[in-house]
Amino acid sequence: MEKKLIGIDLGGTTIKFAILTLSGEIQQKWSIKTNILDEGSHIVPDIITSLKHHLKLYEMQPNQFSGIGMGSPGTVDLQKGTVIGAYNLNWKKLQPVKDMIESGLGIPFIIDNDANAAALGERWKGAGENDDEVVFITLGTGVGGGIISNGKLVHGVQAAGEIGHLNVEPEGYLCTCGNHGCLETYASATGIVRVARDLAEEYAGPAELKRLLDDGQDISAKTIFDLAKEDDQLAVMVANQVCNYLGLACANIGNLLNPSFIVIGGGVSAAGKFLLDRVNTSFLKYAFPTVRTTTKLKLAQLGNDAGVIGAASLALMIK
Amino acid sequence: MEKKLIGIDLGGTTIKFAILTLSGEIQQKWSIKTNILDEGSHIVPDIITSLKHHLKLYEMQPNQFSGIGMGSPGTVDLQKGTVIGAYNLNWKKLQPVKDMIESGLGIPFIIDNDANAAALGERWKGAGENDDEVVFITLGTGVGGGIISNGKLVHGVQAAGEIGHLNVEPEGYLCTCGNHGCLETYASATGIVRVARDLAEEYAGPAELKRLLDDGQDISAKTIFDLAKEDDQLAVMVANQVCNYLGLACANIGNLLNPSFIVIGGGVSAAGKFLLDRVNTSFLKYAFPTVRTTTKLKLAQLGNDAGVIGAASLALMIK
Repeated sequence: MEKKLIGIDLGGTTIKFAILTLSGEIQQKWSIKTNILDEGSHIVPDIITSLKHHLKLYEMQPNQFSGIGMGSPGTVDLQKGTVIGAYNLNWKKLQPVKDMIESGLGIPFIIDNDANAAALGERWKGAGENDDEVVFITLGTGVGGGIISNGKLVHGVQAAGEIGHLNVEPEGYLCTCGNHGCLETYASATGIVRVARDLAEEYAGPAELKRLLDDGQDISAKTIFDLAKEDDQLAVMVANQVCNYLGLACANIGNLLNPSFIVIGGGVSAAGKFLLDRVNTSFLKYAFPTVRTTTKLKLAQLGNDAGVIGAASLALMIK
Repeated sequence: MEKKLIGIDLGGTTIKFAILTLSGEIQQKWSIKTNILDEGSHIVPDIITSLKHHLKLYEMQPNQFSGIGMGSPGTVDLQKGTVIGAYNLNWKKLQPVKDMIESGLGIPFIIDNDANAAALGERWKGAGENDDEVVFITLGTGVGGGIISNGKLVHGVQAAGEIGHLNVEPEGYLCTCGNHGCLETYASATGIVRVARDLAEEYAGPAELKRLLDDGQDISAKTIFDLAKEDDQLAVMVANQVCNYLGLACANIGNLLNPSFIVIGGGVSAAGKFLLDRVNTSFLKYAFPTVRTTTKLKLAQLGNDAGVIGAASLALMIK
């Protein structure tokens, strides 16, 4: 019988699981809450318990799986299968994830960081059309990404794919990384709100976004893009500035790597075609002519499933 | 007996040849002038004649070689082994280089573009320390480059490694590619002179560089860096601006790919440590913290030999 894959998407709020066929079809899917108490020490045991429970439920044995793949936040050691510095999991100390899961379940285990796993997912079964040259950008609380070239993830020495820290404005906003003008300071969910507050200060005309901000209401990236779609002038200005930086970053990614697809995902990408069209305009302005005609920008297609699908595809690489 | 490799570096002025061992030691080296007359139709026949002549001279047979690798300007079709649009060779029409050389010599042939070949050379036997993650930037008449990740050249769809067209100043100088603010417009040999002319217009104090420019003398990037090393204030301003853009580009390359080494070569890199130190200062300012400590900037080490050595290493990939 054909073996199956297990994909795990480990996040600060939930842990998502899926059982997939070798060709990437999801057969079962479930999730549990992430218990980050006690320095996150319950997380891996909870994963093992949940997997054991579901294997029993589906009447499946460990030898029916060719492997388990996981995407994790923090700094992942690919060879050793450990994670450190995943602050949203309370994992400050080194976590021997691979050793614990392999000894707990008897199934080979492989791990990579969450953005890389999502990139693999979109590449395999989503907007990446299973191409060998795909870059994935995720616009969420932060901006992250993953790069696939020659069919393989690019890790560099350690931290390749820091797309959120591409510099798009040398004397720009201060970033949490200590630098100024990182893409993330403009194009993450919080960055977009920051741009809105900044532009609102100088903005004089009538605009609902201006009213909401002056009123001290909580606004989100979604509020801003929704208003921009309704032609709120301030919101349009914000969207244009954010998308201009995103397009510049995409152009530089294209000029360097000339991938078939740059796939834009994450919560902010819910702004859809409105966002994509604007990013594309700026991309076309800054991209090298050959890149302009060969690299295509697309919206992500898998939503929340990208993580588990990509994580499962990691398990395909287990020999 | 161990087989040998042949490397060819095809340029608009000379064609360089070398015979190397499989471990990359140059055993023989020669060059001929490039005859670009008659739409460059003499080039490939000249290469074949020169190789036949030298093989006879060294009493070697085609079966003693595992392959011939070549770096070429223009747009190279890796699979078909053809070149088109190499304007410094007068090659406007498609050139079936691989077919001609293989049938002329009976030795397997492989071709890539010249910047990629030089990148492979520096990676294999030069500053790249044979690492799997190396980016090469060449600062010459233009700015080019090659990217090696997971031990392989990154080609993307067609035009990866267009480092000269990374955008470093969105509303900057007009580039030959039609865009504004490409790295090449500031950091190529001609770009550096352009920066000098621009800054000289606003510069009021005493400076030898200012005097030379006002005097209508021909200055080069070398003149500028030589004067900067002697503390000519205008020349220092030019060097600082150029190196700031180069450092920004290196930082963004690092943030995306986190290579072990970014190797800077080409004619302009003759400015040596003076250039490297300034580029490094700007790199450290813009690079993500992890990248700052893991990606190292270095000067190229092979000079003119990078091309033939890298071309020969292409032949190692012939199955």
